[in-house]
Amino acid sequence: MLANTTWRMANLTRACRARALRGMSSAERTSRRMASGYAKFDWEDQLNLESLLTEEEIAVRLVRVKTYRLSMSLTSSTSRKTSCLESSMLSGQKVRLPFNHMSCSRPIAPPSEFNHDLLPAMGELGLLGPTIQGYGCAGVSSVAYGLIAREVERVDSGYRSTMSVQSSLVMHPIYVYGTKEQKEKYLPLLAKGKIIGCFGLTEPNHGSDPAGMETTATEVDGGYVLNGSKTWISNAPVADLFVVWARCKWDNKVRGFLIEKGTKGLSAPPIKHKLALRCSLTGSIFMDAVAVGRDALLPHGEGLGAPFGCLNSARFGIAWGTMGALEDCVQRTREYALERHQFKRPLASFQLVQKKLVDAQTEVSLGLLAALQVGRLKDEGKVAPEMISLVKRNNCGKALEHSRKVLDILGGNACSDEYHVGRHVANLQVVNTYEGTYDIHTLILGKALTGIQAFAN
Amino acid sequence: MLANTTWRMANLTRACRARALRGMSSAERTSRRMASGYAKFDWEDQLNLESLLTEEEIAVRLVRVKTYRLSMSLTSSTSRKTSCLESSMLSGQKVRLPFNHMSCSRPIAPPSEFNHDLLPAMGELGLLGPTIQGYGCAGVSSVAYGLIAREVERVDSGYRSTMSVQSSLVMHPIYVYGTKEQKEKYLPLLAKGKIIGCFGLTEPNHGSDPAGMETTATEVDGGYVLNGSKTWISNAPVADLFVVWARCKWDNKVRGFLIEKGTKGLSAPPIKHKLALRCSLTGSIFMDAVAVGRDALLPHGEGLGAPFGCLNSARFGIAWGTMGALEDCVQRTREYALERHQFKRPLASFQLVQKKLVDAQTEVSLGLLAALQVGRLKDEGKVAPEMISLVKRNNCGKALEHSRKVLDILGGNACSDEYHVGRHVANLQVVNTYEGTYDIHTLILGKALTGIQAFAN
Amino acid sequence: MLANTTWRMANLTRACRARALRGMSSAERTSRRMASGYAKFDWEDQLNLESLLTEEEIAVRLVRVKTYRLSMSLTSSTSRKTSCLESSMLSGQKVRLPFNHMSCSRPIAPPSEFNHDLLPAMGELGLLGPTIQGYGCAGVSSVAYGLIAREVERVDSGYRSTMSVQSSLVMHPIYVYGTKEQKEKYLPLLAKGKIIGCFGLTEPNHGSDPAGMETTATEVDGGYVLNGSKTWISNAPVADLFVVWARCKWDNKVRGFLIEKGTKGLSAPPIKHKLALRCSLTGSIFMDAVAVGRDALLPHGEGLGAPFGCLNSARFGIAWGTMGALEDCVQRTREYALERHQFKRPLASFQLVQKKLVDAQTEVSLGLLAALQVGRLKDEGKVAPEMISLVKRNNCGKALEHSRKVLDILGGNACSDEYHVGRHVANLQVVNTYEGTYDIHTLILGKALTGIQAFAN
Amino acid sequence: MLANTTWRMANLTRACRARALRGMSSAERTSRRMASGYAKFDWEDQLNLESLLTEEEIAVRLVRVKTYRLSMSLTSSTSRKTSCLESSMLSGQKVRLPFNHMSCSRPIAPPSEFNHDLLPAMGELGLLGPTIQGYGCAGVSSVAYGLIAREVERVDSGYRSTMSVQSSLVMHPIYVYGTKEQKEKYLPLLAKGKIIGCFGLTEPNHGSDPAGMETTATEVDGGYVLNGSKTWISNAPVADLFVVWARCKWDNKVRGFLIEKGTKGLSAPPIKHKLALRCSLTGSIFMDAVAVGRDALLPHGEGLGAPFGCLNSARFGIAWGTMGALEDCVQRTREYALERHQFKRPLASFQLVQKKLVDAQTEVSLGLLAALQVGRLKDEGKVAPEMISLVKRNNCGKALEHSRKVLDILGGNACSDEYHVGRHVANLQVVNTYEGTYDIHTLILGKALTGIQAFAN
Repeated sequence: MLANTTWRMANLTRACRARALRGMSSAERTSRRMASGYAKFDWEDQLNLESLLTEEEIAVRLVRVKTYRLSMSLTSSTSRKTSCLESSMLSGQKVRLPFNHMSCSRPIAPPSEFNHDLLPAMGELGLLGPTIQGYGCAGVSSVAYGLIAREVERVDSGYRSTMSVQSSLVMHPIYVYGTKEQKEKYLPLLAKGKIIGCFGLTEPNHGSDPAGMETTATEVDGGYVLNGSKTWISNAPVADLFVVWARCKWDNKVRGFLIEKGTKGLSAPPIKHKLALRCSLTGSIFMDAVAVGRDALLPHGEGLGAPFGCLNSARFGIAWGTMGALEDCVQRTREYALERHQFKRPLASFQLVQKKLVDAQTEVSLGLLAALQVGRLKDEGKVAPEMISLVKRNNCGKALEHSRKVLDILGGNACSDEYHVGRHVANLQVVNTYEGTYDIHTLILGKALTGIQAFAN
Repeated sequence: MLANTTWRMANLTRACRARALRGMSSAERTSRRMASGYAKFDWEDQLNLESLLTEEEIAVRLVRVKTYRLSMSLTSSTSRKTSCLESSMLSGQKVRLPFNHMSCSRPIAPPSEFNHDLLPAMGELGLLGPTIQGYGCAGVSSVAYGLIAREVERVDSGYRSTMSVQSSLVMHPIYVYGTKEQKEKYLPLLAKGKIIGCFGLTEPNHGSDPAGMETTATEVDGGYVLNGSKTWISNAPVADLFVVWARCKWDNKVRGFLIEKGTKGLSAPPIKHKLALRCSLTGSIFMDAVAVGRDALLPHGEGLGAPFGCLNSARFGIAWGTMGALEDCVQRTREYALERHQFKRPLASFQLVQKKLVDAQTEVSLGLLAALQVGRLKDEGKVAPEMISLVKRNNCGKALEHSRKVLDILGGNACSDEYHVGRHVANLQVVNTYEGTYDIHTLILGKALTGIQAFAN
Repeated sequence: MLANTTWRMANLTRACRARALRGMSSAERTSRRMASGYAKFDWEDQLNLESLLTEEEIAVRLVRVKTYRLSMSLTSSTSRKTSCLESSMLSGQKVRLPFNHMSCSRPIAPPSEFNHDLLPAMGELGLLGPTIQGYGCAGVSSVAYGLIAREVERVDSGYRSTMSVQSSLVMHPIYVYGTKEQKEKYLPLLAKGKIIGCFGLTEPNHGSDPAGMETTATEVDGGYVLNGSKTWISNAPVADLFVVWARCKWDNKVRGFLIEKGTKGLSAPPIKHKLALRCSLTGSIFMDAVAVGRDALLPHGEGLGAPFGCLNSARFGIAWGTMGALEDCVQRTREYALERHQFKRPLASFQLVQKKLVDAQTEVSLGLLAALQVGRLKDEGKVAPEMISLVKRNNCGKALEHSRKVLDILGGNACSDEYHVGRHVANLQVVNTYEGTYDIHTLILGKALTGIQAFAN
Repeated sequence: MLANTTWRMANLTRACRARALRGMSSAERTSRRMASGYAKFDWEDQLNLESLLTEEEIAVRLVRVKTYRLSMSLTSSTSRKTSCLESSMLSGQKVRLPFNHMSCSRPIAPPSEFNHDLLPAMGELGLLGPTIQGYGCAGVSSVAYGLIAREVERVDSGYRSTMSVQSSLVMHPIYVYGTKEQKEKYLPLLAKGKIIGCFGLTEPNHGSDPAGMETTATEVDGGYVLNGSKTWISNAPVADLFVVWARCKWDNKVRGFLIEKGTKGLSAPPIKHKLALRCSLTGSIFMDAVAVGRDALLPHGEGLGAPFGCLNSARFGIAWGTMGALEDCVQRTREYALERHQFKRPLASFQLVQKKLVDAQTEVSLGLLAALQVGRLKDEGKVAPEMISLVKRNNCGKALEHSRKVLDILGGNACSDEYHVGRHVANLQVVNTYEGTYDIHTLILGKALTGIQAFAN
């Protein structure tokens, strides 16, 4: 483990080495520049993000999740789309990769309903709780975590949501606020996807204002009793483990509790008729005098700062993930525009079409650089919550705006699920809203900029 | 009938009378103004559109289609929404209304699948082919037709689509390009919703460029043989009557043909996995040596101008309908914002929320005035196709843009079908695209403005 | 005079000829329509606004203000632009025109500095206080007033500002709130432009919140004493007559006072270094114990409603005027795009250029229809102040947004004053702000929509 | 000097002190982080760009250009704004700074007209041609060059333009394409600002399409004769040295020529009536049989790639500079919003105001990170021209868009030059257009994305 850490440190500083490179003498720099002229432009990585990644991170990025579309016939009603989580690896890769790179052979269902094989498959690949040291976790950088989120959300925001909840909202609080026993009991199972977790913070009447929390925990003999309800809880209907936040009656502070499925008084019905994130399950949590033992309390976090810490971790992943979704939209509409002809020319030759693609891909490049910088600062202990608000807000907002614009390229086909972009658009609407709506993050940043709180204005 | 027409003429000129009112002497005008001060502002009709409608049109507008939400329980999976087409009438209404105002007692299914009772119910109310004189049609103004589209699309764009196809794309071409026999045979049945029609123009490879039409009609003994395929055809899977456009081999001109369901070689499979307009059926049409008699030809329209005439009629209805959908979005999110509290204040008290509502409702007011003016010009024979492009493009684009913005007000609930606005947003994406995409209408207007055609640029 | 008329006829644009055409009998029109199917589209009047105007109003619209650009040489520093206010009239016009149509022969200076001939020239044409009955005013409809504003603002928003102040902010309050003596003394002089008025409401610390007014009036023997200061007052530095609003100490109500230039204690220094509206003079007003007689008080208006009534009149004119400015921007950039070639094609053939023009011209059409409807309601005594907020806000905002977009068509030439559009853009920024900023009108409408006041949020 | 340093230290902003704090040891930092959980958010450097700069670059950044506003009186017409280029340095700075840090004592005139002291002052500070090795130049990184552009454009885009021309468009081509003699003759003088250069590429009829170049060079005995004209040439009217690009008649290739002021047949009249960049001089260049010697030819660059190389260097600087201008707009409007009260609250407490500030500052953070990455790649020889198009286009576009939005915060004061933001807005309109308009860069990137050229579409 230690060696691994050392090795990783050696790699994590690749960016620093790049920076050291910049420290080379001016003469060297000039001669390099003169020799090489211009580089070739890669439209998929317009500003060469890759050059800022460590070798380990590049390997992680290659855990590409790809979707394959089977040919479909207009006359047949059996057109199917199959997605497959697939690991890829550069041959002769010298870096020991912390993930298990056995190709996932199980086909993942098309993203229209929850797939019970998803978390185990992700666990197999080492994608769950990846920044955690030990407990069977990969122990990679925050940037690597972001890169995973980006690749998974290329397929579907719902898959990424399921994963984010497991990693950032369940494993993270146990790792940071839990006891040794709690960590040892739950983290390895969560890491392998053998149990599913969910995170109960949001309440029906306090979507953007968790300070209004009404769920309570009362101290009783041998433990606590929880009462209250939560809503819009991803994974809840299938969760084995519930991380629930409640206001503790004895000191009015908010704390987290671990409740196992099947505990008396606990129920988690699904929310139906969702227009988006269809492959992710969402539910409510009802707690009617749910009694838990003393070992259910997460002792090392108190106050709203504790769940907010989890949200910041999840939001950071969202900032990366939404860029992946937007990239997929650009890629698909670009291909469509190259193949589809109208007026005897490919759509891609029309100025109005090119503008849509360029605007979208520009925001991808900007958003990824910003997420990368926040990831680096996170690992260096220099991150501020407002930075995470900034990239969550910007990347969600831009992904939504531009996925909608490129969707227009599909014309009438935009409304067909076969073309995927419409599904991304519907998903991104939700992602733009959860874990802090766009407007709430605006006001968080507005407060930082002006010193004046304007939430209730 | 004659009397009726006369009466209607007397009413249609109410706008003119209003104008005559303006012709009153300056002194009268001034004294009226002085006396009355300011009027009360009605946020639902911000610029007093009502004052520009005839009494008949106002009566038509009151054929309000309302949706009722039954209370739903989170613990029950049987939450249902029921919509009901319902006629309303001012008590003591003096105007004889051309519609049959018996309340439609059959419940209309929630807009997630095609409802076979819809067209008969609309027929009963006189909503189908309403501008046509005779054949059991209402014979009202184009503006009245627009008002109907607006009210129906408040419920769902899919309902309006089904209706638009029947009225503008099937009844209209039969009425304008058909023989006496064709009119007498089909129009009364279509008007009552006893048979369903569809309109086959768009082809798989020529979405925005109908001039590339590949479907052909060959003259044979006793009639014609049609070959080819059409796609994205609303109503096709349930249609009894197909209006199909084909290039006639004998003179290379495009003409329309009436084909009845069940004709050999004709099939119309549905397009599945639609993300929007779920209550409207869409399909393809395949014609494999479909033989029809001489009486199948619509003789009085030839060239692309004929189907374009139908599209212009439909587009005009869309310009009104999308405003209805946006109005419903504003109404629902406004109510939500008034009821929902965060930070101890209603959402409606937040500047960022008010701005979204105001922007949307402003566009409703502007869009309706423009649609009204085009309707008036249509009835006066002064309309130009570019005017219809203008209001179709503007109203669809604005409805889509602003329904998306107000959707954000719902926060996490945006993704739940229970709140309806997300459904409108998904629908409007399609409506913005069909019958001429936004960009195609941009270029139609661009050509009118500059004299230069830039479609293939 | 006759020769002059002839010459002007020869110069009537195509648009006017088209209009003459519309004068044909209804029967002719119908037969034409049947023949051609559709009316011809006029890009300059896309939705046929003209068809909604009275003959008198059409005549007013023809009081076209035209700018002539003399040829300029790059090597010469004497390039000059000359504008000329010019009246036009259809020969044989049957309508008695309320304006004096003697052509204004005095050249108006290019709009870079205040021109002392402007108001007299406008007075000569009957453009000042045009809705007022008697006192030498034209007594035309509010729509006619709007049409004048539109034509004048085609040339420069500053000219329209100068005119608006005179008509809506000075003549209007005297006419509505003044005594018979005040009206007879001032209105004829103001109507002829022989004296200039200004309107002192805004104070340095209360731009958007006039309720915070600090200027006071104290009752003294024989009259009143005024103290306080006003800022951003158009026309102030050259004003002969000051309409100043003050809080009356005796009952704490706001009332208007007429103060003549030269009164002791009154000063009105200009505000320099303005970036826009350069041809309009703006200043502050300082009142240091200014003593006026009892006849200075406007007795028939008290409370903020009085000055707000004036503002509503001015805002209505702005809603029309800004559309004129945007129309000029479209016209100029369209011509440029047709003449200028890049890559061997006219700029006007590029999709990205066509889109800018189409977007702008669409908003012109919508904005004018809305302004027209508000004007009609105004004359019928059915207008609500929020309606005026709506058209002021929308038309200013859209004019600013789209004038900026079409400005880009000029490329590098955008920054040259020779091309006029940059000047309009700079002007419109101010117009979007004065008489209620965009955001303030948002919140006025937001209050009307939600019932909740959010100004101080 | 010492006293001066002390004084400057006292004036170092909070930002600088925060930065000093960052200089603490890693251990300290970690313990602080553990204690406080998160780093403190610095709204002026939201994503901690500073952490990515070398010490040398940080020192360069501190060459802050500050503007001081003298108090101004409304009653006095002598209100003046004075700007001063001033170098700052942290005491005890260990890095050898390549610039001469003597404080510039000469006051720089307010940015309304060209200032002849500007280039010498910049030369004194080492700001000209700063990436060049030798010839009296600083030899710093491309990022340092960008940081200089950002600081200078905070004051005025016109100052940065003057500097960009000298550095990127005159010194750069001489350094890269010139002979040893040409470098030795001109670079030291240009580096000190003792002579002024200009760059003649753009022609009247080929703004966006330099391939259409009409200026020619003919070979004659002893040299060349040039004929043609150029327009929109910054610095031209005061230039001592003209870098002019011409099509060489002998092989039809484009090459650069150095022409000295006063050469027979050469003239460079200024373009007047500019609405923006008023402190930068712009002119045309007319060449009527201008004869130059063989030593006037830049021998090492042929084809359009040569001037494009210069433009890429300048565009890179613009990408940084525009962010500086936008930062200044945010800073000024933020201060205004904090000071200005309406409805008894600071403007900064209004949600609509906070949103404008947040949107703008977010784009600053994104734009700077992107420019930084391109700068690093540039020095590593990995830059592609499309990357520069991306950051030039994005940063100009975003700076223009958001400077306009925050300008609204100033309300009526937006139109006063005293508040500076309006000036930035006018400047940025031009900067968004020159060296490749926004749309041209869209199409350059569109070509890279799709492989299809759409310039002439």
